[in-house]
Amino acid sequence: MKLIELLNWRYATKAMNKETLSQDKVDYILEAARLTPTSSGLQQFEVIVITNQEIKDKIRTVSWNQSMVSDCSHLLLFAAWDQYTPERINGMFDLVNEERGFKNEGWENYRQMLLSKYPQQDPEVSFQHAARQAYIALGMAMVACAELKVDSVPMEGFDPKAVDEILNLKQYGLRSAVMLPIGNREAKNDWLVNLKKVRRPKDKFVIEIK
Amino acid sequence: MKLIELLNWRYATKAMNKETLSQDKVDYILEAARLTPTSSGLQQFEVIVITNQEIKDKIRTVSWNQSMVSDCSHLLLFAAWDQYTPERINGMFDLVNEERGFKNEGWENYRQMLLSKYPQQDPEVSFQHAARQAYIALGMAMVACAELKVDSVPMEGFDPKAVDEILNLKQYGLRSAVMLPIGNREAKNDWLVNLKKVRRPKDKFVIEIK
Repeated sequence: MKLIELLNWRYATKAMNKETLSQDKVDYILEAARLTPTSSGLQQFEVIVITNQEIKDKIRTVSWNQSMVSDCSHLLLFAAWDQYTPERINGMFDLVNEERGFKNEGWENYRQMLLSKYPQQDPEVSFQHAARQAYIALGMAMVACAELKVDSVPMEGFDPKAVDEILNLKQYGLRSAVMLPIGNREAKNDWLVNLKKVRRPKDKFVIEIK
Repeated sequence: MKLIELLNWRYATKAMNKETLSQDKVDYILEAARLTPTSSGLQQFEVIVITNQEIKDKIRTVSWNQSMVSDCSHLLLFAAWDQYTPERINGMFDLVNEERGFKNEGWENYRQMLLSKYPQQDPEVSFQHAARQAYIALGMAMVACAELKVDSVPMEGFDPKAVDEILNLKQYGLRSAVMLPIGNREAKNDWLVNLKKVRRPKDKFVIEIK
């Protein structure tokens, strides 16, 4: 199916039915997130996949009690790097060299430029930059869901610090950016399921400079 | 074609051949950006579509002289709201009510909650939040490009303040977030075109909490 049709099909699912998705589907969605393009190819985030019911229930308590958090099949949390470190930057550049089988001078110069800049940044600046990349992956995961007719709901309505603590994300050098419960809709309890999708018309969204 | 195949097909195109894309293709790509899900459905960004060669050339001078900026067919700039205002928030909520043909109490309460919180935020916090949403749309535009076999290259390597000034984005209440030159590759000048796409393996990207 075409992307535009997928974007029209999907909606922010407000009630889920606790069914468990097949591992094949979950793997496909995670693969879309993994292949997501990111700034300098650093993939400056990870995806936490939560199926433990107790943990989901606990996260729900710091997510305005939204039912999708506990009734989803898999709770995906996109968690971004809390800071750029030489280890993280070198890790990606080394992996690229290893996979491509050669070193490239321009690429090595670029590595040095990032090493001289990113780790010295205010951690908040780094996290904000990394979080933006996580949002690209959030989008890819939503498209992958729609392709598989899996429901999903992007969620910022949670206390990120509390979620970080519940999952002890500090141990991984990560901070919560955005969540995506995935699963199957419980249509009869979902106020949004039949409502029209609304977007600004093109002339209020696009500015042409000819 | 499936999303995973599209993500594997695309790459950050480092040289473009100045060919002009058909309007149909550009419209499809912009429609994907327009349909992108965003926080509270606010669509807190706009897409500036630049085809004026002089402006593209000027932006190239503040973009590390990267050739794609001037050699692309259309330069898409994702520019996010510089602040949430009551007008902007009410504009979207009113549009939703108008399109759906009714008012909903929960929705109206949600409007009031946003009105009591967002416009009072530090503009930098608002912009960072809006910019994240723009990155979801950046991703959708890249997928749309791949579906049409259009090349694209996501770019943060530019001076956002200089671009804001060139385009006088202040008049729209917008700030540059990220750019996406789109067009057709000039393969013979593109150092990246034949190199392997590298991503961390799944076990270094996904954390499972069972």
